[in-house]
Amino acid sequence: MNKLKLRLQLEQFFIEDIGDRDLSSESIFGEEEMGEIIFIAKANGIFCGEDVIRIGFHLLDPDCVIDLKVKEGDRVEKGEIFASVKGKVASLLKGERVVLNLIQRMSGIATQTNEAVNILNSQHTKIADTRKTTPGLRMLEKHAVQCGGGANHRFGLYDAVMIKDNHISFAGSITKAVEKARSQIGHMVKIEVEVETKEQMLEAIAAKADVIMFDNRTPEEIKEWIGLVPEGIYTEASGGINLDNLADYRDTGVDVISLGALTHTVKALDISVRVKIG
Amino acid sequence: MNKLKLRLQLEQFFIEDIGDRDLSSESIFGEEEMGEIIFIAKANGIFCGEDVIRIGFHLLDPDCVIDLKVKEGDRVEKGEIFASVKGKVASLLKGERVVLNLIQRMSGIATQTNEAVNILNSQHTKIADTRKTTPGLRMLEKHAVQCGGGANHRFGLYDAVMIKDNHISFAGSITKAVEKARSQIGHMVKIEVEVETKEQMLEAIAAKADVIMFDNRTPEEIKEWIGLVPEGIYTEASGGINLDNLADYRDTGVDVISLGALTHTVKALDISVRVKIG
Amino acid sequence: MNKLKLRLQLEQFFIEDIGDRDLSSESIFGEEEMGEIIFIAKANGIFCGEDVIRIGFHLLDPDCVIDLKVKEGDRVEKGEIFASVKGKVASLLKGERVVLNLIQRMSGIATQTNEAVNILNSQHTKIADTRKTTPGLRMLEKHAVQCGGGANHRFGLYDAVMIKDNHISFAGSITKAVEKARSQIGHMVKIEVEVETKEQMLEAIAAKADVIMFDNRTPEEIKEWIGLVPEGIYTEASGGINLDNLADYRDTGVDVISLGALTHTVKALDISVRVKIG
Amino acid sequence: MNKLKLRLQLEQFFIEDIGDRDLSSESIFGEEEMGEIIFIAKANGIFCGEDVIRIGFHLLDPDCVIDLKVKEGDRVEKGEIFASVKGKVASLLKGERVVLNLIQRMSGIATQTNEAVNILNSQHTKIADTRKTTPGLRMLEKHAVQCGGGANHRFGLYDAVMIKDNHISFAGSITKAVEKARSQIGHMVKIEVEVETKEQMLEAIAAKADVIMFDNRTPEEIKEWIGLVPEGIYTEASGGINLDNLADYRDTGVDVISLGALTHTVKALDISVRVKIG
Amino acid sequence: MNKLKLRLQLEQFFIEDIGDRDLSSESIFGEEEMGEIIFIAKANGIFCGEDVIRIGFHLLDPDCVIDLKVKEGDRVEKGEIFASVKGKVASLLKGERVVLNLIQRMSGIATQTNEAVNILNSQHTKIADTRKTTPGLRMLEKHAVQCGGGANHRFGLYDAVMIKDNHISFAGSITKAVEKARSQIGHMVKIEVEVETKEQMLEAIAAKADVIMFDNRTPEEIKEWIGLVPEGIYTEASGGINLDNLADYRDTGVDVISLGALTHTVKALDISVRVKIG
Amino acid sequence: MNKLKLRLQLEQFFIEDIGDRDLSSESIFGEEEMGEIIFIAKANGIFCGEDVIRIGFHLLDPDCVIDLKVKEGDRVEKGEIFASVKGKVASLLKGERVVLNLIQRMSGIATQTNEAVNILNSQHTKIADTRKTTPGLRMLEKHAVQCGGGANHRFGLYDAVMIKDNHISFAGSITKAVEKARSQIGHMVKIEVEVETKEQMLEAIAAKADVIMFDNRTPEEIKEWIGLVPEGIYTEASGGINLDNLADYRDTGVDVISLGALTHTVKALDISVRVKIG
Repeated sequence: MNKLKLRLQLEQFFIEDIGDRDLSSESIFGEEEMGEIIFIAKANGIFCGEDVIRIGFHLLDPDCVIDLKVKEGDRVEKGEIFASVKGKVASLLKGERVVLNLIQRMSGIATQTNEAVNILNSQHTKIADTRKTTPGLRMLEKHAVQCGGGANHRFGLYDAVMIKDNHISFAGSITKAVEKARSQIGHMVKIEVEVETKEQMLEAIAAKADVIMFDNRTPEEIKEWIGLVPEGIYTEASGGINLDNLADYRDTGVDVISLGALTHTVKALDISVRVKIG
Repeated sequence: MNKLKLRLQLEQFFIEDIGDRDLSSESIFGEEEMGEIIFIAKANGIFCGEDVIRIGFHLLDPDCVIDLKVKEGDRVEKGEIFASVKGKVASLLKGERVVLNLIQRMSGIATQTNEAVNILNSQHTKIADTRKTTPGLRMLEKHAVQCGGGANHRFGLYDAVMIKDNHISFAGSITKAVEKARSQIGHMVKIEVEVETKEQMLEAIAAKADVIMFDNRTPEEIKEWIGLVPEGIYTEASGGINLDNLADYRDTGVDVISLGALTHTVKALDISVRVKIG
Repeated sequence: MNKLKLRLQLEQFFIEDIGDRDLSSESIFGEEEMGEIIFIAKANGIFCGEDVIRIGFHLLDPDCVIDLKVKEGDRVEKGEIFASVKGKVASLLKGERVVLNLIQRMSGIATQTNEAVNILNSQHTKIADTRKTTPGLRMLEKHAVQCGGGANHRFGLYDAVMIKDNHISFAGSITKAVEKARSQIGHMVKIEVEVETKEQMLEAIAAKADVIMFDNRTPEEIKEWIGLVPEGIYTEASGGINLDNLADYRDTGVDVISLGALTHTVKALDISVRVKIG
Repeated sequence: MNKLKLRLQLEQFFIEDIGDRDLSSESIFGEEEMGEIIFIAKANGIFCGEDVIRIGFHLLDPDCVIDLKVKEGDRVEKGEIFASVKGKVASLLKGERVVLNLIQRMSGIATQTNEAVNILNSQHTKIADTRKTTPGLRMLEKHAVQCGGGANHRFGLYDAVMIKDNHISFAGSITKAVEKARSQIGHMVKIEVEVETKEQMLEAIAAKADVIMFDNRTPEEIKEWIGLVPEGIYTEASGGINLDNLADYRDTGVDVISLGALTHTVKALDISVRVKIG
Repeated sequence: MNKLKLRLQLEQFFIEDIGDRDLSSESIFGEEEMGEIIFIAKANGIFCGEDVIRIGFHLLDPDCVIDLKVKEGDRVEKGEIFASVKGKVASLLKGERVVLNLIQRMSGIATQTNEAVNILNSQHTKIADTRKTTPGLRMLEKHAVQCGGGANHRFGLYDAVMIKDNHISFAGSITKAVEKARSQIGHMVKIEVEVETKEQMLEAIAAKADVIMFDNRTPEEIKEWIGLVPEGIYTEASGGINLDNLADYRDTGVDVISLGALTHTVKALDISVRVKIG
Repeated sequence: MNKLKLRLQLEQFFIEDIGDRDLSSESIFGEEEMGEIIFIAKANGIFCGEDVIRIGFHLLDPDCVIDLKVKEGDRVEKGEIFASVKGKVASLLKGERVVLNLIQRMSGIATQTNEAVNILNSQHTKIADTRKTTPGLRMLEKHAVQCGGGANHRFGLYDAVMIKDNHISFAGSITKAVEKARSQIGHMVKIEVEVETKEQMLEAIAAKADVIMFDNRTPEEIKEWIGLVPEGIYTEASGGINLDNLADYRDTGVDVISLGALTHTVKALDISVRVKIG
């Protein structure tokens, strides 16, 4: 996590919510009135967002005192008080909603990821995210996937190559597409090829793809084909997989299963706050 | 919608995804290769995101040609091609994921809002959003709620007063809290008071609150109490309401029901793209 | 006041003035030379700008010690020393001009607003600002109006509706314009209608405008018409009102009088600084 | 004028005013409704702000057509229509207030500067501005001074040296202060020394200051001392000079008179707009 | 290359140079005066910077006409006119220096890289850059390395793992460091391990590092050790290699040689411009 | 040096290198692991970059302890430990490369400048930089020139006038160009004229240019012509001068010699770091 970047993001998020002033709290509370915000889980889940709480409230009240009873990735139980922040109450209230919106979302992602990991229940196969993240929040959402026990797929268009059907058809073949890409990228960049048939898979293997993605393939197909993949080539299953059918992929032997839903369809973890004045 | 602001946001979102270059498309396609991206709904829903498509792709390829077959808020059917963009294929592919992430989310919000409106099925009562939006995306998410037939609650801490329990307990009473707020805000700002008892409601009425929010009250309570609210004071129900129990509030006579879930727990509308080269 | 936003603004303002370095002070003083800047009022007025002084000098010298002898909105007398800042003299001198430019302007607005309040001399009617503020400084200028005893009109196009003649003529009537707006805005937003005739006023009342603005009306007209405005609808007078004729509106019974001149034509409060080295 | 910088500033100023949307115009007008905004001078003055109009409205409606009947620095008469902009009316209305706020202020500065030039009525002596400008608007305000026939003093702490009393007392003498500065600055930078006595002036001359500023000196003093200033050293009068006593300095022979009031106390030029729909 | 990002960078670079105005050209030329800037190579080299020229001048004069006679990576000869831009001369002159500073630097990097490629003269071994780039210019400098025939090493700390001596000593061993890293990174990320001894190399191989870097090893050592590296593991030589001793590594069989000097010590390609007015 | 601006620049530079996280150090070290970074000169030179070290590492670890054994502009010897920073090792490692890239470049500029000063070996003539700086780094590079004993030429297009051949040919003559410029700029701005012939020089003198630049003139020409330049006009030699022929200009009597190579062709000073954990 890049904390410098997070601080700049939080500044923008607070300004989005506060605008030129907090009409309610500024008119009711004095600037120096002290208070405490207590965070309570309203559902079981995985906590994620420690730095959001720490950096967020310190931006608004540099003298506030933060007490976090959990660590990133810890399990919280319904009813559990997991954090409290003491400081100037008008300052804390200005940040409460933004912090909640972020940690509910991040904890929701971590919780859902963890659920997927548990459903899959595999020593070998990992659960990974995709680029289907909320624009502007990729760093935080990918971090949340990690907190839930998942792995990160590429972060953007800039850190790995994905060769898809339109690249292949334009280049003429998987072989040509991989060669063309390889000739232009550095040696620290991996190439993944999406395949839909066994022939494509074999061509990708021959082309020395670093990773092969079984695109919308059944568990049976994957299980059958994967025996032909030599050691050193990583395999991924993607497309049409969700929490309901995830367990079907347990015994395919695939290295990683990526799920867009981890970040594009998120149930926020229910968290409430209690405010004490004085 | 502030299109200037949207353009600046899209620039940042594209840079988040593209970074310093698109390793895949830049190495496979030439810069001048032409192509087309076609957007297809994979589920029924309400479309939202016209300006995202228009401004987004024009940022990446100023000469691209955009054909939108639907308008903001229109219903799309599963399998329907609702938009296409012709231009330089490497440029279009750089923007595809970000645009999809946004319009799937916005259309998901619009669709869910519309579902709520239909479930409620009321001529009188409106469905509204809250401040439980994704940090950085409030403008777009509140716009999506409108596209789905919902109404916007306040946009931030800056455009309306919400008097909650901690304001009340600190000020000493609802009366004092409303007075204190009224004395510091302008005449164009409304004050809403959250009430949990009939006594609080009556005090808020006497204090001339502009809006009264029934906080976590049953449909029965609301129906009973609402008769005591004079004309000119707006009423809102909030807390513990979701798509399952929403219909129970149909006959309460409340003016608006606000649902945090409209934006904090979103099922992205499934949209896919097909890419044609040449 | 959003202090996070103020800090970001001050950073930009300092950079505008300092550029790449302060040629004079950096070449004369050493970096560690200590000193004091003392602020003296050169005219009677209302002080405004505490956060500008505090946040501004702390940005330039985090260890400086600030002694403010007045509070926001306090009266200062000609010759009065109202603040002093001790710290690294080269750092303090870099900020002096920007801080002065801001607090002279803000105090000038507060002083002029206070003068208007005193001229009006009404228990009932308030003085309000407009959107005729300096681009980039709206938060600070609206805050200064408050410090002078004035009230804030809407902050921008985003927090309230103003229906003017061109909206009315396009919509077809006040009734239609109010309806059209009402159907698209949230329940926390007020609608104000500008009226020039009694008929328009009655139509606006019937359309349930929240606020009626008497646009360029004489005190006599307002006094006569206002009796027809039911309780619960707020009234405003605007247009052609200045410090010279303001008193004429004292007995009109109008709720608020808005004055563009409060912010568009400002006499900076004369403030000087004395610098002590060592 | 740096138009790239102006465009970025206008984007920020528009966002300050529009926020997430223009509640009034977006709800009344359709996006495609055409219209015209006509600018009318309500007082005699000097026009300034051509680029603000051109760049501003093009940001909001790239297809708008702008008809400017005056040039930068031209005189406008009360009642004169000096500009009109045709385009999408909802877009134009979003920018109207910001553009007006800027051009009224800039034209006010140009007008006041021109008045000072006329009062001084000198072939030899120029009127100049100071650093007492509105934070964030220095480029535009210094440009306005030029449009009114004035000259620009230094733009910031970075483009010229001003040696003031505290620099002198710390350095030990004018001679030492000038030497110290000269040794650290480049050969394209001028040094100005503020003097209050004839002895100081002679010392500054001996130290080869590029410019000598008579700080709060009477016209008589200046007239007497100036004969001792050798050719090649520029002279400036500053401090306590305003439109009322400016003429007293006409025959002093000083090269430039700087007036803080040109920018710190501005009477906006009264300009109104008329909007035509369709 | 991310052209959106480049545009934002160019805006900042132009503002750094132009500030509030171009004193020279704005005072000599009228705004509408047309002219042409012609770029001439003053030395042989590899051209790099097409997008800088195109996007840069279009920012300053959207109507300018650019004629580029070379493509990215083409060789230019001393005396060759390789580009010209026709447009408003005052606008073009504002951008000339910034564009030159960039393309001279980029072409210098491309030229030096190409020289290294030619000295190495290997079908097998590539020349790569490092993270020793100019802060703020990494995208452009890495692009220039590509234009010169070099390859890009990782772009930052975010797109690949480099395990160095301090990571190893802290983790306890190469094996533990690789395992620790592998457990936390995604499957699209490569791990490179720096080794100084044959034992370290063998441990890195056993740990399944993706890339092994021979840190400050002699050509002889590399040549001897490399036979033990299994296919599928990439090798890199780095440290103490420069244009003088580069050829010694030709027959080592190493896959890539990285040179910090490609970007940290750059001889700008000499390019001059000729300006025609009218 | 504007430290506020430097802080904002360093934030951007760190984000360029770190992106969303430091894959290597974050996965190997815990967040609280302490360590030390020690800076060692690997070559003799002039140190420059104190504020980069101080502000840079404090951004990443506000509690780090910095021990600088040298001051800005001090000479460092090969092998000399000149700085150390103790703090959280993962935080320090995130900043190491960016800080090194900057201080190596800045120290390289300072060293090269100092070498030029020594080669010239003149009491009278100064060495100056140009606008041929790296875009985005002008403040730091001009500061480095000062640290090496050089002087700064103008910082941009905004702080001084340079009249070149195309200005002259468009204006009609040097006389007209100087007049035109003089009439539009303030009295704190100097005008420099580039001359190639003695006639041009005499015309520039008559036109009262503040500075005359001998453009690509031989030492002999300069020596001969300079006797005709009256006191009070500054002289500069530029064009075709480098470290090899610089000494030839020692006795020309010119006031300053400007060298583009000081900043456009920089040999980074070799500096290495040693990292201690624990």
